[in-house]
Amino acid sequence: MLGRTYEREVCSAARALEVAGERWSLLILRNAAFAGMKRFTEFQSSLGVAPNILSARLAHFVDEGLMAVVSPADSGVTEYQLTRKGLDFKPVIAALTAWGDRWAAPDGAPMEFVHTHCGGRARVEVCCERCGELRHLEEWKAQKTPAMNLVRKRRSKRRE
Amino acid sequence: MLGRTYEREVCSAARALEVAGERWSLLILRNAAFAGMKRFTEFQSSLGVAPNILSARLAHFVDEGLMAVVSPADSGVTEYQLTRKGLDFKPVIAALTAWGDRWAAPDGAPMEFVHTHCGGRARVEVCCERCGELRHLEEWKAQKTPAMNLVRKRRSKRRE
Repeated sequence: MLGRTYEREVCSAARALEVAGERWSLLILRNAAFAGMKRFTEFQSSLGVAPNILSARLAHFVDEGLMAVVSPADSGVTEYQLTRKGLDFKPVIAALTAWGDRWAAPDGAPMEFVHTHCGGRARVEVCCERCGELRHLEEWKAQKTPAMNLVRKRRSKRRE
Repeated sequence: MLGRTYEREVCSAARALEVAGERWSLLILRNAAFAGMKRFTEFQSSLGVAPNILSARLAHFVDEGLMAVVSPADSGVTEYQLTRKGLDFKPVIAALTAWGDRWAAPDGAPMEFVHTHCGGRARVEVCCERCGELRHLEEWKAQKTPAMNLVRKRRSKRRE
């Protein structure tokens, strides 16, 4: 594939950043996912982002299947509706928010996440499936899986 | 503050993106946090990023307190050591990885996160503090806190 920023990477985080790592992308998804925004004008006035950039980002999200274009009957407007794939960025946005709440919000968190069913606070946690909560960030590392070797082998074959 | 991309935003996610939202930033943090990289040459050869961009990113992380510059005795090299503030980006990277594993890894996840103490798989979960796990992403919204009003009032005073 041409034009990808992180082309060399065999990494799911890099793939996610290819899709939503451009400037403004995650904030557009945030407003769609947590504020229910759907229209170009809503995104534009809430974010103050340049219209050409907003257009490009929305078109990219539609291309990538994060949003679907819908036109409610008789409305005469175009709406961008998050798909499951787009909605699935909510934990990413919440993890970024948790970082900002801790390190860049001297007056306290400006927003909090709430479970609509019970009103409880919702948050992102790192858990170990064997022993429960994982309390120390140092106790946690990444390791390669067989899929990594598979992809690498295929790439080196393509280069031969 | 001048030169901030998301200056209008009163949002912790936007603040986090100001610090680590530039191209390559999160992948540099990933390699520091999950692969233990500390040296310019390690980041450069593993990522293939242009040296001037890597320099700028590392300097920005030091300025922002995500990394500290250290020089191990007699080594003659400079090392960039993650601080607590930098290490705290691990859940963000893991949340991005979870998205990519689900939506952009047709051969399966190339990496998995492991708890070093027990070998169990570690993952990012969205939980409700009142009723336990939160299973549906739709059941979860953001709402303003008093800190949001505080920051907004202060800003509008500054503009008067």
